Amino acid sequence: MPLKIIGIAGSLRKDSFNKKLLATVAALCPSDAIIETLDFSEVPVFNQDLEANMPPVVVEIKKKIKEADAILFVTPEYNYSIPGPLKNLIDWVSRPYGDSSWQGKPVAIMGASPGRLGTVRAQVALRQCFVFLDMHQVNTPEVLIGAAHEKFDAEGKFTDEEGKKLIIKLLEELIALTKKLKV
Amino acid sequence: MPLKIIGIAGSLRKDSFNKKLLATVAALCPSDAIIETLDFSEVPVFNQDLEANMPPVVVEIKKKIKEADAILFVTPEYNYSIPGPLKNLIDWVSRPYGDSSWQGKPVAIMGASPGRLGTVRAQVALRQCFVFLDMHQVNTPEVLIGAAHEKFDAEGKFTDEEGKKLIIKLLEELIALTKKLKV
Amino acid sequence: MPLKIIGIAGSLRKDSFNKKLLATVAALCPSDAIIETLDFSEVPVFNQDLEANMPPVVVEIKKKIKEADAILFVTPEYNYSIPGPLKNLIDWVSRPYGDSSWQGKPVAIMGASPGRLGTVRAQVALRQCFVFLDMHQVNTPEVLIGAAHEKFDAEGKFTDEEGKKLIIKLLEELIALTKKLKV
Amino acid sequence: MPLKIIGIAGSLRKDSFNKKLLATVAALCPSDAIIETLDFSEVPVFNQDLEANMPPVVVEIKKKIKEADAILFVTPEYNYSIPGPLKNLIDWVSRPYGDSSWQGKPVAIMGASPGRLGTVRAQVALRQCFVFLDMHQVNTPEVLIGAAHEKFDAEGKFTDEEGKKLIIKLLEELIALTKKLKV
Repeated sequence: MPLKIIGIAGSLRKDSFNKKLLATVAALCPSDAIIETLDFSEVPVFNQDLEANMPPVVVEIKKKIKEADAILFVTPEYNYSIPGPLKNLIDWVSRPYGDSSWQGKPVAIMGASPGRLGTVRAQVALRQCFVFLDMHQVNTPEVLIGAAHEKFDAEGKFTDEEGKKLIIKLLEELIALTKKLKV
Repeated sequence: MPLKIIGIAGSLRKDSFNKKLLATVAALCPSDAIIETLDFSEVPVFNQDLEANMPPVVVEIKKKIKEADAILFVTPEYNYSIPGPLKNLIDWVSRPYGDSSWQGKPVAIMGASPGRLGTVRAQVALRQCFVFLDMHQVNTPEVLIGAAHEKFDAEGKFTDEEGKKLIIKLLEELIALTKKLKV
Repeated sequence: MPLKIIGIAGSLRKDSFNKKLLATVAALCPSDAIIETLDFSEVPVFNQDLEANMPPVVVEIKKKIKEADAILFVTPEYNYSIPGPLKNLIDWVSRPYGDSSWQGKPVAIMGASPGRLGTVRAQVALRQCFVFLDMHQVNTPEVLIGAAHEKFDAEGKFTDEEGKKLIIKLLEELIALTKKLKV
Repeated sequence: MPLKIIGIAGSLRKDSFNKKLLATVAALCPSDAIIETLDFSEVPVFNQDLEANMPPVVVEIKKKIKEADAILFVTPEYNYSIPGPLKNLIDWVSRPYGDSSWQGKPVAIMGASPGRLGTVRAQVALRQCFVFLDMHQVNTPEVLIGAAHEKFDAEGKFTDEEGKKLIIKLLEELIALTKKLKV
């Protein structure tokens, strides 16, 4: 049975480069894994007082994450860091204390931005969370898609052949790490 | 006229240590400044598609921030980083592109946590944003209130005398930097 | 045969807390591994022009690292970051390009400081390097030994029983990760 | 009298891009300031045991830094962080405890690398130190010179006109901040 990777695009914007990138990535995934895209547009702003009655959408997402074999973040950069909506999701899914759904999951990151840097600082910031979340991070290759506005066609397909090679390599590394850690 | 500092507690929880700390801090503020507390509990999750019709609560908060002389963040740490709700607020207030309300503001940070570290990693992560936001950060003293559960009385008042001294010093530094940069 | 872990104390000072801590840690190591301490006091300041004729002390250290099964850093914090001498060692051992000796090694971190924070920011900064170095980091438990000046006896032995338990747990995690990744 | 800015290139390599960049930057400096280049090639690896008898080269550098009005770092990136030799210099100059020469100095950063990212992660890591060092950082513009191998002529002069504009802007910001903080 193929591994299940949950793919999470860090932006809620309809025409988000990172949403489009994730769609392409799902189609490029090697056959020993499938990527399922997570919709978290209905997740409210986190408030610990709501934990006792967790919103059903969060309960459902927590279940999906817990059942996944690995996680892939495809994220923009907001203000040199993790997008607020994505950090908000991460915080919800890490709760309640002692029942984080992220715990022990292998994880990889990529990101796309119109600028040259391809979300590098968001990725640095995100990796800092992985330590507390106890996720096993893939280190290489870096997938930092710059000039994103030039790299999607009219149908929203990612067209950068060099980028695709890196993406496939990253997925292979994520799959290999997931298999090793399952033993 | 006293300087106006907007104080922002990074948690939405009703009994948040950082909310209580901010209330104490506001009462300790030297007389050449006043601290006004920001309520951002009604701010929705950020979505760039909503920028064209910004939610009225965000418009109002952006106005308050723009009129402020300085900013004080009083923040917990979530997953070794900035709380999602606080990052979400920061992102909204930084938008739309070219009209960030944070731009040029002097800023100081403090935080309280039940553990020993007093939100140090959230503060590191938050400072990374200040560079892009072009905020002028106060460097010292560090205000990292650990063991927070032992430092508030039954009325929610902060009782740590050493901590109060550091807080007053930090406020003095924020006020002095604000005055220097206004010249 | 036991796994070989190279232990590296980040300070060159004779009476360094982190050197003493490393000596204790080596004695606590579970029997399926041994910790060998690295002396890098003779490593000169890095200069890429010297790579063609690498100093013999660096050649020897590179060989030791390459042969190791795992790495343990025991580091102080200098100026909120990695100590210069330790970063200098890391840079030498990562060179020349394409022949880093760190590549693929499992790694764990701990640190001791007189203050309360136990080198937390140095550890955050060090983990940022592990991504480029492609080292597999142990996430938990955190070993942040604060108040270090009160935790060694006259013979330089580490006396904090809670700290020792965390250290043993961290070593067990490092050993377990090393075994998994070897498969 | 013009302000004195000490310019520090983070690499010791003879043909370093960042050394060449610093030479260009010094020539571009607005007339109300001069940039003096610091040679730290003789600074040994830091060891706190040597503080009581500080090496004369360190004493001299500490004096220069202390007399400077502002600091400019022009740095490569080593292993996603601050170059070891530069961190080693920073640590020496911050010592002994209570007599850091960096304290209170305005500071700006730039960097050049052959890759696309222009040392962005080294700059993030360096800014983390500025907080402890209590230096006042210029936030913008970012000067991240990528593809550095294509941007110097046979005489070692920096030829990127867009890059020069950013550099001049950054120097103007450093000078303006220095003047404001002197009041």
